[in-house]
Amino acid sequence: MSSIRIDGLQYANWSESIFREMRAGDIDAVHVTIAYHENFRETVANFEAWNRWFERFPELICKAGSADDVRAAKASGRTAIVFGFQNPSPIEDDIGLVEILHTLGARFMQLTYNNQSLLATGCYEAEDPGITRMGREVIREMNRVGLVIDMSHSAERSTLEAAEISERPIVVSHANPASWHPALRNKSETVMRALAACDGMLGFSLYPHHLKGGSACTLAEFCQAIADAAEVMGVEHLGIGSDLCQDQPDSVVEWMRVGRWSKTMDYGEGSKDNPGFPPMPDWFGGNTDFGNIESGLRAVGFSEADVAAIMGENWLRFFERNFGPMTP
Amino acid sequence: MSSIRIDGLQYANWSESIFREMRAGDIDAVHVTIAYHENFRETVANFEAWNRWFERFPELICKAGSADDVRAAKASGRTAIVFGFQNPSPIEDDIGLVEILHTLGARFMQLTYNNQSLLATGCYEAEDPGITRMGREVIREMNRVGLVIDMSHSAERSTLEAAEISERPIVVSHANPASWHPALRNKSETVMRALAACDGMLGFSLYPHHLKGGSACTLAEFCQAIADAAEVMGVEHLGIGSDLCQDQPDSVVEWMRVGRWSKTMDYGEGSKDNPGFPPMPDWFGGNTDFGNIESGLRAVGFSEADVAAIMGENWLRFFERNFGPMTP
Repeated sequence: MSSIRIDGLQYANWSESIFREMRAGDIDAVHVTIAYHENFRETVANFEAWNRWFERFPELICKAGSADDVRAAKASGRTAIVFGFQNPSPIEDDIGLVEILHTLGARFMQLTYNNQSLLATGCYEAEDPGITRMGREVIREMNRVGLVIDMSHSAERSTLEAAEISERPIVVSHANPASWHPALRNKSETVMRALAACDGMLGFSLYPHHLKGGSACTLAEFCQAIADAAEVMGVEHLGIGSDLCQDQPDSVVEWMRVGRWSKTMDYGEGSKDNPGFPPMPDWFGGNTDFGNIESGLRAVGFSEADVAAIMGENWLRFFERNFGPMTP
Repeated sequence: MSSIRIDGLQYANWSESIFREMRAGDIDAVHVTIAYHENFRETVANFEAWNRWFERFPELICKAGSADDVRAAKASGRTAIVFGFQNPSPIEDDIGLVEILHTLGARFMQLTYNNQSLLATGCYEAEDPGITRMGREVIREMNRVGLVIDMSHSAERSTLEAAEISERPIVVSHANPASWHPALRNKSETVMRALAACDGMLGFSLYPHHLKGGSACTLAEFCQAIADAAEVMGVEHLGIGSDLCQDQPDSVVEWMRVGRWSKTMDYGEGSKDNPGFPPMPDWFGGNTDFGNIESGLRAVGFSEADVAAIMGENWLRFFERNFGPMTP
């Protein structure tokens, strides 16, 4: 069997055509965002919508809550869908919903999405007072049930405190090194080292605002950034978290940015002149282009084993150890 | 290992003391009601409360969603808790919630609780127009995912139509033969034969309003009613569904009867002079008294194999075949 291919984050406008593209691209598993600003009931409606996708396309996709589910998906020629939230809004102010949502299939939850949340501080806030009182309780509960802490959109102090408070590894599922491209969403070397120290993961993002040179970033530059990160973190803590948002209209990009929290537009990593989703680099437009990244990784000197690790085996090993209840 | 002991329905004011009594009574599994009038979000809060019980008393109880879970509970000396609803209120008007609630652990759902619901007619309505348009859709969805249709509190025509429309067995988890004691909640021979014909189950109730002679009903009379039902339905379709409501204050009995649907009191099977929960028969007061029923069944002539079947093996066999997704 070929080595496993896992994408650590996507948020597409899902359709049969994208599911078929995932199969054509030999994608064995994708961490799929099913909440940005949704409250509990709205998130449940998103799980319901996915149940309809699973019922309609059982030969293309299946729900996955464990590494074994991902292996079974690969063996049966399907793409495993792993659910996650980019915001803790689905748990509202109710810690009991952590286990409920894990039971429904959630495996990743960001403690913040750009803004201050009930749990921690987002990367766009001016001040970062760190993990809140509720945040400490929720981290313990997430650890207990096996809901992974994702700090992709969190601020630095909150991220470092989460890594310290959490008894299990945390991740940044989709972001790049700030030393390579200094976006607010990209991560400092301190954060990168903290992720490695807790045996966590960094998923490299293909979102153009996270890339050096934006849409013009070359494959060689992207892969060299991964090689440089391997020097800092060790190759075993690196994966891909493409942040692919295929077929989403600009209205969804707007909603991702402001949800219901603002009456006026916030352009996030965009700007008034460039409000929509920027064009993807020409070497990575969708699910059939992961092979280009594999070639690029070989070209910057990674061994076959390291390429396989980065393209999926590291994520699979992480799923194996972190999606189930904590063992004493 | 001793034969299995399963109670097909309880709704106690749960506490460590009742969990310990279930262990003392060697109860291997109980179908526990977690919704009478609750909407979806309130039902989720009840699942959350049970998650806290499971966390606090892992040596006494565990959650069960399959016959194998029940066997594992027995093997480890714990009582398996199987969840059910006495009303379809948890799915509100959203068919997608059927699968969501099954994923959370629900395995039984009544289509009605005494009154007309969105799906069917309750046993206290004057008219019974049968299964509704939504009811037909929900029955198909319950069949698909493995959520068992329970018609304990439904009217006759709705019950017979449910048995006919459903592609899988249906149950009356807690009621007695109307020919033995003509309460509105007890079931006609026509319904009993329909339950047997679909390979369903009737769980005999110990709720005094369902017993001939009420609280004064003798063990011998109760067990003879089971023997007579076996002549009609076959012993393989009979079990116990005690309807035990231990330690519940009268305010909860009132809430069970009127929920939020009436501003004035409805006494259900009680009356203004006898509004509360009637005293249990002296031979069955709680979870440690199932042995009395076993003795009573032997005394009316059941073989050891039949006693074991009625006291739990029939329910276990039913769980085995009906709690999972429908196989084509």
